[in-house]
Amino acid sequence: MSDRLFIFDTTLRDGEQVPGCQLNTVEKIEVAKALEELGVDVIEAGFPVSSPGDFNSVVEISKAVTWPTICALTRAVENDIRVAAESLQYAKHKRIHTGIGTSDPHIKYKFNSNREEIIERAVAAVKYAKSFVEDVQFYAEDAGRTDNEYLARVVEAVIKAGATVVNIPDTTGYCMPWEFRDKIKYLMEHVDGIHRVTIATHCHNDLGMATANTISGVMGGARQAEVTINGIGERAGNTSLEEVVMAFRSHKELGIDTNINATKICGVSRMVSSLMNMPVQPNKAIVGRNAFAHSSGIHQDGVLKNRESYEIIDPKDVGVDENSIVLTARSGRAALKHRLHVLGVELSKEALDKAYEAFLRLADRKKEINDDDVLMLAGEHHKANRRLKLDFLQVTSGVGVKSVASIGLDIAGEKFEACASGNGPVDAAITAIKQIIHRKMLVKEFLIQAINKGSNDIGKVHMTVEYDGNSYYGFSANTDIIAASAEAFIDAINKFVH
Amino acid sequence: MSDRLFIFDTTLRDGEQVPGCQLNTVEKIEVAKALEELGVDVIEAGFPVSSPGDFNSVVEISKAVTWPTICALTRAVENDIRVAAESLQYAKHKRIHTGIGTSDPHIKYKFNSNREEIIERAVAAVKYAKSFVEDVQFYAEDAGRTDNEYLARVVEAVIKAGATVVNIPDTTGYCMPWEFRDKIKYLMEHVDGIHRVTIATHCHNDLGMATANTISGVMGGARQAEVTINGIGERAGNTSLEEVVMAFRSHKELGIDTNINATKICGVSRMVSSLMNMPVQPNKAIVGRNAFAHSSGIHQDGVLKNRESYEIIDPKDVGVDENSIVLTARSGRAALKHRLHVLGVELSKEALDKAYEAFLRLADRKKEINDDDVLMLAGEHHKANRRLKLDFLQVTSGVGVKSVASIGLDIAGEKFEACASGNGPVDAAITAIKQIIHRKMLVKEFLIQAINKGSNDIGKVHMTVEYDGNSYYGFSANTDIIAASAEAFIDAINKFVH
Repeated sequence: MSDRLFIFDTTLRDGEQVPGCQLNTVEKIEVAKALEELGVDVIEAGFPVSSPGDFNSVVEISKAVTWPTICALTRAVENDIRVAAESLQYAKHKRIHTGIGTSDPHIKYKFNSNREEIIERAVAAVKYAKSFVEDVQFYAEDAGRTDNEYLARVVEAVIKAGATVVNIPDTTGYCMPWEFRDKIKYLMEHVDGIHRVTIATHCHNDLGMATANTISGVMGGARQAEVTINGIGERAGNTSLEEVVMAFRSHKELGIDTNINATKICGVSRMVSSLMNMPVQPNKAIVGRNAFAHSSGIHQDGVLKNRESYEIIDPKDVGVDENSIVLTARSGRAALKHRLHVLGVELSKEALDKAYEAFLRLADRKKEINDDDVLMLAGEHHKANRRLKLDFLQVTSGVGVKSVASIGLDIAGEKFEACASGNGPVDAAITAIKQIIHRKMLVKEFLIQAINKGSNDIGKVHMTVEYDGNSYYGFSANTDIIAASAEAFIDAINKFVH
Repeated sequence: MSDRLFIFDTTLRDGEQVPGCQLNTVEKIEVAKALEELGVDVIEAGFPVSSPGDFNSVVEISKAVTWPTICALTRAVENDIRVAAESLQYAKHKRIHTGIGTSDPHIKYKFNSNREEIIERAVAAVKYAKSFVEDVQFYAEDAGRTDNEYLARVVEAVIKAGATVVNIPDTTGYCMPWEFRDKIKYLMEHVDGIHRVTIATHCHNDLGMATANTISGVMGGARQAEVTINGIGERAGNTSLEEVVMAFRSHKELGIDTNINATKICGVSRMVSSLMNMPVQPNKAIVGRNAFAHSSGIHQDGVLKNRESYEIIDPKDVGVDENSIVLTARSGRAALKHRLHVLGVELSKEALDKAYEAFLRLADRKKEINDDDVLMLAGEHHKANRRLKLDFLQVTSGVGVKSVASIGLDIAGEKFEACASGNGPVDAAITAIKQIIHRKMLVKEFLIQAINKGSNDIGKVHMTVEYDGNSYYGFSANTDIIAASAEAFIDAINKFVH
């Protein structure tokens, strides 16, 4: 049986501190409920004393969430702790997270204090928190740069004072993995009573090693990992929930597991990215758009001869929609079959075998196989001609004027026109297209990427459109971002309008 | 003295394989020259046999670049090697990179072969490559999942055959850091002649641990790191050049250093992101927009009392423009002074001290201090009123029509109007604004972020405008992405038009 690793999510506290990522209370509740469904053990809901908004969010999240422990952050200051306790009054399971800096620079410059006094303040804070709640977590800020001997004394003191969890943060994100593991191991071996409490890691990603440090810390004896969705957080961010969870799932020999329902990962990742307006880069591990782009077929239902030998993550396990998987030479027969199904083509076993052989030959020459190629391979050549084409588009928008779009579509040779107004030029164009194509289509995901050196460079639009229970992907690139958006929408529609 | 770690950049080979990231030869030369300036030791320029385009790129990069070794990839196939050698004919320093899969699944399923035959093929490939060039690098594909004993035999055989560099890739990106270090260490201790050659790491980021694995591999004895700019590459990408370089720079006690001119990192990162249209997420380590957002002042010229105790990276060291640094409670006096300078305000030492005190008080309440706040703090209250305001904007664009924008600006109460056409609606709007503001302004960076659940959600625009040798940052958010772009431009202009 695996040892349980507790997942402490701080997306709503350390993640939300990022400039531009602030959420309102309603959005925070939405994220908290998604985290509950994901199966996190603890939700750090805010820093109540910092603002009335933060206080209120902790109150409302406490009411909205049932299973996870709700945690509120404080400094080692009585008023902080009192306010945190008050904000947690409705929580079914509540925890106060208090602490103080323990590294020499923190002690000297931040607190103008000394080591003995810091221990006294830490102990007082834990005892005071304990007068309100049973579950008290202590953080030793900048523990990554605190010498182990003194750190052990601090940890021992707060455990005696009643702390139930002790958090060892690498605040500046500069520890090496083996260094961090050794630090936790030192504590496990030198602190009296440490086996009565849970030791937590809280790693930052300034050198790109937050995940490795967290896992190393767990190997050293920690049993709580403090993480955020997509690794968001100050500077280079916190440890990614998805990376830690999947690293242990794909290394079962380490004997550690979490309570996370991994199939929810991708959905929560998109929700947080969207609400916080923090893009996830395509090559982000686990949740990036390309994370599984090249391995696709290998994990599909066992058809490829060497499937079992590959131990890498099945995209489905983390809730990745297979429709977004790029078909390449490494894709399996099941991936091809699925794509054909999405495109409305069902083949017999023999026909599929033949199409797959042709697919492998083509994929050897062509890096990426698109839907037209797939249809051609399946002998559905005639369908490869796009039924729907953009004939013309004219959009007027601005400040002080209502956005309006006039659009012409060519559907299998016949011309159609429509116009519509909307909330911005993209919305106007999409709405006009919907007036011609009378289907229940929902734009599920809409990503504009334009990174340019000037204002006249190319923008790319990725779009996912939901129709009849399936998701269809559309793409376009154009110097005109509005035209690219309309084209991407049409690209997606072409995948189900035959 | 530090041990030298050689940096082998594969942005143009493994990075360029990513769907949507393909570059033309001219763009590849641009990247190769930037890599040369950055100080990389080896540029993997392509896989010449894969396409005439790849072949031609290796030829042209070989001509364009002087100092770095140019490397071409091959399979353990004679024709691949012959073609690679031909493509390298103009290179001043040339290397052929050949290899074969050594893990059981690769041997059994990919090659339908056995261990002895694989060694024979490996040796034959190295010998054949050696007949063309002196410098031959061998890769043991999927070495991460190859058992150490057999891997040692392979490595020993290719060294005897003349390999000068042996690359140990973690092809599937699933090694744990300590596992990967132990693998390299095992080879260092068990392979005859290994100290005559360089051992290389090539790690993938599928579990977010590529950097940690690379550094661990170097600690185990490797002295070449295979990396890409921004960590781009298949699936979750390769190891990030910037993370490996800066990890060793900020951990001098490890005694390892590279030849990289780190101040060029940020520029090359932006160039690659822009040319490949691969966004870098804001919380990416080292090169993300927020990577230093919160630590800013701490590293500025020694004013903050605890500056020396902080060992984290100085943004300037990696070429980050300080103007983009967000001012927060952790910003130093030098950061405030610099921002005021950019805003055109110079204060005496006393006035600066006073403004800094007021700044700290404000920053305690407000997470992010904007330019208006800064001007107010400096007693330049009257300047806080934006001189330039958007009065109205009307843009018409589309497919089959020319983009045209009509704009009205209010400059200190006076009204101005202009219209312009452009290459897309954003370009038209920007051009119209430039007709009113007659200054030499260059849009240096232009980033649109819109990640939405529908077409009517908010888009954000970040813009950097160069004027008179300084960079000014502008931002806006609007459901209308064109309006947001115009507003961001005006926001930037307001920072230098007083």
